[in-house]
Amino acid sequence: MELVTSQKLFDGQQQQYTHQAESVNCEMTFSIYLPPQADTQPVPVLYWLSGLTCTDQNFVTKSGAQQFAAKHGVAIVCPDTSPRGAEVPDDPEQAWDFGLGAGFYVNATQSPWKQYYQMYDYVVQELPRLVEKKFAVTTQRAISGHSMGGHGALTIALKNPERYRSMSAFSPIAAPINCPWGQKALGLYLGDDQEKWKDYDSCELIKVSSNAVPGLVDQGSADDFLQQQLNTQQLIDTVSRANYPMQVRMQPGYDHSYFFIATFIEQHIAFHAKHFDNT
Amino acid sequence: MELVTSQKLFDGQQQQYTHQAESVNCEMTFSIYLPPQADTQPVPVLYWLSGLTCTDQNFVTKSGAQQFAAKHGVAIVCPDTSPRGAEVPDDPEQAWDFGLGAGFYVNATQSPWKQYYQMYDYVVQELPRLVEKKFAVTTQRAISGHSMGGHGALTIALKNPERYRSMSAFSPIAAPINCPWGQKALGLYLGDDQEKWKDYDSCELIKVSSNAVPGLVDQGSADDFLQQQLNTQQLIDTVSRANYPMQVRMQPGYDHSYFFIATFIEQHIAFHAKHFDNT
Repeated sequence: MELVTSQKLFDGQQQQYTHQAESVNCEMTFSIYLPPQADTQPVPVLYWLSGLTCTDQNFVTKSGAQQFAAKHGVAIVCPDTSPRGAEVPDDPEQAWDFGLGAGFYVNATQSPWKQYYQMYDYVVQELPRLVEKKFAVTTQRAISGHSMGGHGALTIALKNPERYRSMSAFSPIAAPINCPWGQKALGLYLGDDQEKWKDYDSCELIKVSSNAVPGLVDQGSADDFLQQQLNTQQLIDTVSRANYPMQVRMQPGYDHSYFFIATFIEQHIAFHAKHFDNT
Repeated sequence: MELVTSQKLFDGQQQQYTHQAESVNCEMTFSIYLPPQADTQPVPVLYWLSGLTCTDQNFVTKSGAQQFAAKHGVAIVCPDTSPRGAEVPDDPEQAWDFGLGAGFYVNATQSPWKQYYQMYDYVVQELPRLVEKKFAVTTQRAISGHSMGGHGALTIALKNPERYRSMSAFSPIAAPINCPWGQKALGLYLGDDQEKWKDYDSCELIKVSSNAVPGLVDQGSADDFLQQQLNTQQLIDTVSRANYPMQVRMQPGYDHSYFFIATFIEQHIAFHAKHFDNT
């Protein structure tokens, strides 16, 4: 693991690292914010998963989250959104909604993707193992994300309720099996059998969930992707029918951008902090 | 004046506009954050001047300032850092410390720069005239900035104490007549007569100031530009000798980046708000 940058921020450290990642078979970059509390005691970790076209940097520079991480004594780890490198296969038409920057947090089963696109294993297993070995953190974890990363955060927590204290999302792709972004990505990464797609669909996973993870979702009403891609109403209905402990809030007038995230990230971090011990 | 974007942020609006600017003889872009209070009453305005290579966008996306502007009911206006366009002459060697993105907030007197590089007039006169005509704002103004923009904010307020209630800066180029960035820019924009440079040097202006403007300056001790370019110690000494009402704070461990600005912008906005009426 190699340190790329370390900068003081809200009395803590914002750092970026690279490391050779086994699960995705390439060098990966991630960022971590260590709050000042980590100088004296291990702190819990919030994992943040970004959306299409993003890297580990978007949330770090635009969300304003670190001030609230510093307040609550929470570390924030931001992985990249896909494997990277000249050898990693990309969308044949270099579209921005599949391939590089668009790993969808699944384990691909189809060639040529499966050799690298194992982002689910990377986020769930390999990265936490590394983080918990190298930094002053506990094994208390929460997970959040935006858009494609909101889908990633919810599905990962739903599939691993024992590993996460809480989950949240901004503008998640809540039912990828029913929207163009999801159908393209799941079809290419997982193949034509749509039954297999359900294993990465938040609404389908809520229906079969037994151990619940407390959840919070915010969605802007002026989001250009709301109708065609995000299926928020289906999430609201599914949560309601399953009586799942997830609050889904429509926020009037907000769009799909980081301005929306910046506006509500304080509440999300407070929500996660509430579910950690001793913060 | 043409609206480019308008996005909801902290219950207010973050907007970007273009307009044909007389003083700098080209189309200029600026951003404005209108806090929710502006829906019902005129609000005071903080002008933010960015540093070398920046546009109107850096502060908007990276500072996290808008949450505090929303709290205090202050609008924030961010101009670009230079005239722009194919017709605007740039540094002959396309260096990033002069020309496009590096107007230094002066009125150039030398050819070929003087036809466009009148950023002082643009920021002091033309932009406030436009803003005060078009938006729900008062004529109460404050000014702040970073690096080259910190130099701009301090010199502009020092030269116009009747126009600004308060001034502040992050990592300002505090004595440009004594550093490589300043000597290059002032030499090219203003010519060889170094007496004329003093008119755009914060330390020189403090020495001859009569009407004081309350000031706050933050400087990171781990700033790579501290020793060669910023002359913070000279500012501290000058303020002390002149008994000028400006607090200059060294902040241990912080660098020259927007992470430093994000960490202390809350205090700067509270400082400016204190000097406005009714906020």
